Amino acid sequence: MSSLQALWSADSIAVIGATERPGAMGRLPIEYLQKYEYQGFIAPVNPKGGQVLGLPVFTSMAKIGKPVDLALVMVPAADVLAAVTDCGQAGTSVCIVMSSGFAEIGADGVIVQDELVRVARAHGMRLVGPNCIGAVGGPSRVLATFSPVFSSPATPIPAGNIALVSQSGALGFGALSLGIERGVPIGVAVTTGNEADVTAVDVAVQLVADPTVDAVLMYIESLGEIDSLSHAAALKPIAVVKAGRSEAGARAAASHTGALASADKVVDSALRQAGIARVADIDALLDAGALFATGARMPGSRIGIVTTSGGSGILAADAIEACGMQLAELEDATIADLSAVVPSYGNATNPVDVTAAVMAEPRLFEKCVDRLAADPNVDAIVACFAVLVGADVTRIARALGVVRTRTGIPVVAVRTGAASLAPEGAAVLSANGVPVYPTPERAIAALRALHATSLRRSRAAATGKVAQAPGPGASEKQVKEILASAGLPVPESVLVSSGAEAISAVSQVGGLAVCKAIVPGLLHKSDAGGVVLGVTAQNAVDVFNRLKALGGQVLVERFVQGGVEVIVGVTPSALGPVLTVGVGGVLTEIVADAAVRLLPVDEIDVREMIAETALAPMLAGARGAAPSDLDALVRVVVRLVECTREWPTGFELDLNPIAVLGDGCWILDAMYADGLHVDSLQRAEGQ
Amino acid sequence: MSSLQALWSADSIAVIGATERPGAMGRLPIEYLQKYEYQGFIAPVNPKGGQVLGLPVFTSMAKIGKPVDLALVMVPAADVLAAVTDCGQAGTSVCIVMSSGFAEIGADGVIVQDELVRVARAHGMRLVGPNCIGAVGGPSRVLATFSPVFSSPATPIPAGNIALVSQSGALGFGALSLGIERGVPIGVAVTTGNEADVTAVDVAVQLVADPTVDAVLMYIESLGEIDSLSHAAALKPIAVVKAGRSEAGARAAASHTGALASADKVVDSALRQAGIARVADIDALLDAGALFATGARMPGSRIGIVTTSGGSGILAADAIEACGMQLAELEDATIADLSAVVPSYGNATNPVDVTAAVMAEPRLFEKCVDRLAADPNVDAIVACFAVLVGADVTRIARALGVVRTRTGIPVVAVRTGAASLAPEGAAVLSANGVPVYPTPERAIAALRALHATSLRRSRAAATGKVAQAPGPGASEKQVKEILASAGLPVPESVLVSSGAEAISAVSQVGGLAVCKAIVPGLLHKSDAGGVVLGVTAQNAVDVFNRLKALGGQVLVERFVQGGVEVIVGVTPSALGPVLTVGVGGVLTEIVADAAVRLLPVDEIDVREMIAETALAPMLAGARGAAPSDLDALVRVVVRLVECTREWPTGFELDLNPIAVLGDGCWILDAMYADGLHVDSLQRAEGQ
Repeated sequence: MSSLQALWSADSIAVIGATERPGAMGRLPIEYLQKYEYQGFIAPVNPKGGQVLGLPVFTSMAKIGKPVDLALVMVPAADVLAAVTDCGQAGTSVCIVMSSGFAEIGADGVIVQDELVRVARAHGMRLVGPNCIGAVGGPSRVLATFSPVFSSPATPIPAGNIALVSQSGALGFGALSLGIERGVPIGVAVTTGNEADVTAVDVAVQLVADPTVDAVLMYIESLGEIDSLSHAAALKPIAVVKAGRSEAGARAAASHTGALASADKVVDSALRQAGIARVADIDALLDAGALFATGARMPGSRIGIVTTSGGSGILAADAIEACGMQLAELEDATIADLSAVVPSYGNATNPVDVTAAVMAEPRLFEKCVDRLAADPNVDAIVACFAVLVGADVTRIARALGVVRTRTGIPVVAVRTGAASLAPEGAAVLSANGVPVYPTPERAIAALRALHATSLRRSRAAATGKVAQAPGPGASEKQVKEILASAGLPVPESVLVSSGAEAISAVSQVGGLAVCKAIVPGLLHKSDAGGVVLGVTAQNAVDVFNRLKALGGQVLVERFVQGGVEVIVGVTPSALGPVLTVGVGGVLTEIVADAAVRLLPVDEIDVREMIAETALAPMLAGARGAAPSDLDALVRVVVRLVECTREWPTGFELDLNPIAVLGDGCWILDAMYADGLHVDSLQRAEGQ
Repeated sequence: MSSLQALWSADSIAVIGATERPGAMGRLPIEYLQKYEYQGFIAPVNPKGGQVLGLPVFTSMAKIGKPVDLALVMVPAADVLAAVTDCGQAGTSVCIVMSSGFAEIGADGVIVQDELVRVARAHGMRLVGPNCIGAVGGPSRVLATFSPVFSSPATPIPAGNIALVSQSGALGFGALSLGIERGVPIGVAVTTGNEADVTAVDVAVQLVADPTVDAVLMYIESLGEIDSLSHAAALKPIAVVKAGRSEAGARAAASHTGALASADKVVDSALRQAGIARVADIDALLDAGALFATGARMPGSRIGIVTTSGGSGILAADAIEACGMQLAELEDATIADLSAVVPSYGNATNPVDVTAAVMAEPRLFEKCVDRLAADPNVDAIVACFAVLVGADVTRIARALGVVRTRTGIPVVAVRTGAASLAPEGAAVLSANGVPVYPTPERAIAALRALHATSLRRSRAAATGKVAQAPGPGASEKQVKEILASAGLPVPESVLVSSGAEAISAVSQVGGLAVCKAIVPGLLHKSDAGGVVLGVTAQNAVDVFNRLKALGGQVLVERFVQGGVEVIVGVTPSALGPVLTVGVGGVLTEIVADAAVRLLPVDEIDVREMIAETALAPMLAGARGAAPSDLDALVRVVVRLVECTREWPTGFELDLNPIAVLGDGCWILDAMYADGLHVDSLQRAEGQ
C-alpha cells in the first residue's frame, strides 16, 4: 500500500494529544473511530499516560513499540514539531497535522512549517496539513478527523466509489456531509490544509490508483503542478472546484493557506487540456460526482431530452447551448416514431415534450425515452419530469435504468419538484444508475463535466531543432536574429550608427522602412515615440537623429504594410510555460481576446486557439476583405514553440505584432526577458 | 377585487367537465378543493348532471343561477369553445382553459384560440390559458388546478407572502412544490400557458397590487410588454427566469407555446432597466424568493462575509466579483476589533474567517457578525458555517436574526452541510428572517437578485425638438440632411452629377473628400467598392466615373480622418425601439461589443452603455493615444434619441461609423429603413 493510502485505509492509527475531555480535539477521532467500529489498532498518545475512552494511552510514539500507518497530531502549534519528530523517529508512514498556526499566520509560521517538512522527509514520512481537518475512509472505517460532521447521530459511515479531496477542511467535510445527504456515494474524503508536504494533487493521484475509487472530486485553492494530475485524469474522471477565480478571491486565498493562487485562465486551460472537468461550485461538484459514480462515459456531446414540461425542455436547450454542447438532431425515423405517440399539442422533435398527457397514459414517457435512446445521434439522455408523483416516478425510474444499462449512454433525470411527491423516486433512480437533479441546468452541467473528462488532449512532445536562447537583456535585433536563424519569418533589418548608414540601410531593405530606437529597458517603444513607419531615403537622416536622441541604437527594418495583427507570447506560470495567441497590435488591450495553453502544444491546439478568438473571423477576411494566411501563422506558432522549448525556465517572449498577410506572415516586433529580468521589470512596473 | 384576483381568491368556482371518474382531469380540482377545505362555493358542471364527490352537478353554467368568480374548463379541445361561450354568457369573471390543442398545435389551433379570446372579450370575461395547469391561492384555499402535486398527501396548502407566475404549467407547479419543500413561502401560484388573453405579466401586475403578496417570482418564455411590469417592479421585488436564451431554446419556445421568444439581449436590458432581477434557473428563482420574503432591501452592493471555512470565504469572494458586487472594505476600527477575537491563523479582514476555533468558542461567530454589521461599509452579510452541528447552529441562527432585525440589512446563511447536522437550523434561521443556502454562490446570487431590484432606472420622458422622419427608402444624403437639421454633426457634402461638379465639390468640402455611390438598396457600400477615401481634385473625375458606374448618384463629402469609430443604432424589438451603442467601423463584427437599452434613455444611460463596452478604453486613449471627445458622443446619442422619438413604429436607423475625434464627433454614414422596408430587407437577406 502506498503510504498515502493510509489516509483512508490505515491498519493502525495513533492520536497524539489524546484526551478524555469531552469535546476536545484530541478526543474526537478516538470517539469517532469507536463509534463507527474501526477494526484496526488505535493508539492514544499523551505524555500524561492513563486511559482514553477505555484505551491505554502511550506516553510517546516510541512506546507503542511498532510503527503505525497513520498518526494524527492534535496538539497546540508549539508542540507540533516535537510530535512530528516523535512520529518520524517511530517509523510512522503518514502523519496528519491538524493543528493551526503555521504558514497561514505569516512568515514566522512558514519557518516552523518548513521545519516540520524537513523532519518528516528526513524520516521518510509523509506529512498532511498542517491546518487541516484530516481524512476519512468509509470502507476501512478510518475516521482520522475531528470534524463535527461525525458527532451527529444522523451521519452514516461514508460509502461509495467516489473520493473527495479538499484543500479546505471545513468545506471538504461540509461537502462530504451534503453529498451523503444527497445520495452521492463518497466513500473517501481527505483534506490537505496548508499542503506543506502532501498536496491535494498527490492525494488525488493515489486515490485514482485505488481500485475501490472510480472518480475523484477536488476542491483546491492553489494548483502548482498539473502533470501527475493529468496522468491520473487519463485513468479516472476528475472534477475540480478551483477557488480564487477573482482578484478578491485570490487575495483571500493568499491570506488563507499561504499558497498563492495561480492565474485563473492558465488553470482553466491546464485543466481542460488534461481532461479534468472544472465545475462552478460545490453543488456542481457533487452533481458531477453523482454522475461519475454511475460509471458512464460520454465522448459525444449531443443530448436528447424527454420532458413532461415544455418549460424544462427549453431551459435544458438553453443550458446545452450555453455550455457548448448540442441538442441532438434526431433522424427522421425517430421523429416519425415519436410523432405516433406524442400528442399533437406536444413536441415530437428534440426536446421531446410528452406534456401532461403522461398523467393519463403513464407509459408514454418510457416509450419516448426508449425510442430516443435508439437514435444514433443521441450521446446522452435527460429525462425531465416536473411533478409526477408516486408510482409513476418509480416506474419511469426503472425504465430509465433499463435504457441506461442497455445503451451504455448516460441517462440523467430532472425532477423539479419536492422529493416527497415520490419518496421512493430518488432511491430507485440511483439504484438504476440514473442521477437526479432539481433543475435542467444542473443536469446539463453534470453531463458537461462528464463530457469534459473525455476531451483530454494528449500533448505530443515537441521535436525539431531547438534555437539558442537569447542572452539576458537581448535587444530586439538579437532576438529577431535568433528567430530568423530558427527559420521564422523576420523582415530584413540593419542596425545603423549614422545618418548615412540609415540612408543606405533604407535602400538595402527595399526603399521603405520602419525605424526603431533600440534602447535597453525601453519596453513600450511606440509610446515613447521610438518607432517611425514608412521611412524613405529622403527622411532617413531626420528620423535617425530623432531616434538616436532616445539614447540607444537605431534599427532600420523593411516596412511590412497591412495584414491582420496577432500577438503570440510565451510566459511563465505556476504550472509551467504558457503560450498565448490573440488579437495583437493596437487592438491588444482593447479587444483583450487571447487563448492560452500550457506548453507543449501541437498544430491542432494552435488551430483551436485561433478558432477560440476573434482572430478566426479577422483572418477569414471580415467585411469582404481577402483572407489572410492562417496556415503560415500556425506554422510560425508551432515552430516557435518547438525552437524555444529548452530556453531557460521562466523566460518571457512577446511577439507583437505578427502581421499575417494574404501570403505568409512576418514577426514585426519581439521582446525577450529571462526569468530574472521579467521579475525585475515587473517589480519596476509595480512601483 | 380585480377579476384576475379570482385566480387565487375566488369565492365561487365552477368546474366544467366535472366527473366522478378517479384520476380524471375533471375530478381533480374538486377533489383538491375538498381536500384542502375550500370554504367557497363549488359548482361542478356537466351536461350529464348527477353528483360529483357529493356535490350536485349543474348541466350548464346558466343553471348555476348566478355568476361565478372563476370557471375551470376541463373538457376536450373540441368542446372548449362551447364551454367558454357558456361561461361568458353566465357572467363568469375569469375562466381558465386547461385543455390543450390550440396555438401549440399550429395554424388550425391558432384560429380556434383566437375565437376563444373573441368570445371571452365579447362578454367582458378574462381567459387564462389555454394549455395551462391553472392556479392556486393558499390563503383562500383556492385549488384551481389538476396538478398532481396536490394529490400527494405530503403537500401542504401553500402559504406565504411570495407569489409565483409561470407560463409553463408543469414547471410552475414543480417549482411551487420544490419551493414548499425548501421553505420558500409561496402562497399563490398561477400558470398562464398559451397566454391567448391573460399573460404572465398581467397576472404579475395584479399580484403586486394584492396586499398579501410581497414579491413575485416569474418563469416566462416570451415577453411582449415591459411597461406595466416595470411599474409593478417599482412597488415590489420581482425576479424572472426567462427561457429561450439560446437559439435552440428559442426554437423550442416557438414550438411549445406558439409564442415567439424575443431577442435575449433586449430582454436582459429591459428587465435590468426596470429593476427586475433576471436569475439563472429555478433554483436561483426560489433562492431569490426566500430572500425577498424577508422584506429586506439592498440598495448597496458591498458584502461582508463571516465564515468558519476559509474555502467558503474565497468562493463567496469569487462569486461577488463575478456578479459585479463588491467585497466590503472594512474600516480600520472594525478590523482592529475583529483582530482581537479572531485567532491568528484565521482572518480578521473581509472575508472574516473564524476557523474551526468556533468549535471551542461558540460565541466567536456571533461576535464577528455583530461587529461586521456595525461597519458602515457593509450592505449585506453572508454567514458561512459549513459543518457546525446542533445547538451551535441554533444559537448562531438566533444571533443572525437579531442582527437582521437591528440593522435592517439583509443577512443570509450558507450551510454547506447536511440538514440533519442541525435539524432545527433551517427553521430557526427562517423564523429569524435569514434564508439559508447550500453554497456561497447561491447565497450571492440571491443577494444579487435583491440588489438588482433596487437598480431601477427611471426612464425620463424625452423632451426637445423632434425631427421629421425620413421618407421610405431615403438616401444617405436625405437621412443626413434630416440629422443635420436636428443639430447633429454631419460632414458637409454635395450630390454631384458630373466630373466637373465633383471637382468643384471636392474643393467646396475642403480639398480632401470621401466619395460614395448612393444606390437605392445598396446596404453595404464598402463591400461593393462604393466608397473611396481621400479623394482630391486630381482624381475626382476618375472616382466620379467609377462610382457613377454602380448605377446611382455620387456624394462628395468632407473627409474626416482618424478618431474612434462608433456604431449607434435604433432598431425595433418586441418590447419597443432599442438603442444600440458599440464599437463601430471595420471592428463592428470582429469585436461585436455593443450595449443595448430600450428607449427612452437619458444621458446617464448613454454613459453607462459606453462604459459597458470597449468604447470606454478606446475613447479614453489606448496605448498613450490622446483621449477622444466622449462628451460629444454622448450629446449626439442623446439628441438622436430625442429627435427620432416620434418616427414611425418599427423604423431602423444605423449610424456607422460615428467618428469620435479629440474635439467633437461626426456621423460619417447613415442608413434608414421604415418598418416595412426593414422587413423586406431582412426577408431578402434571409433568402
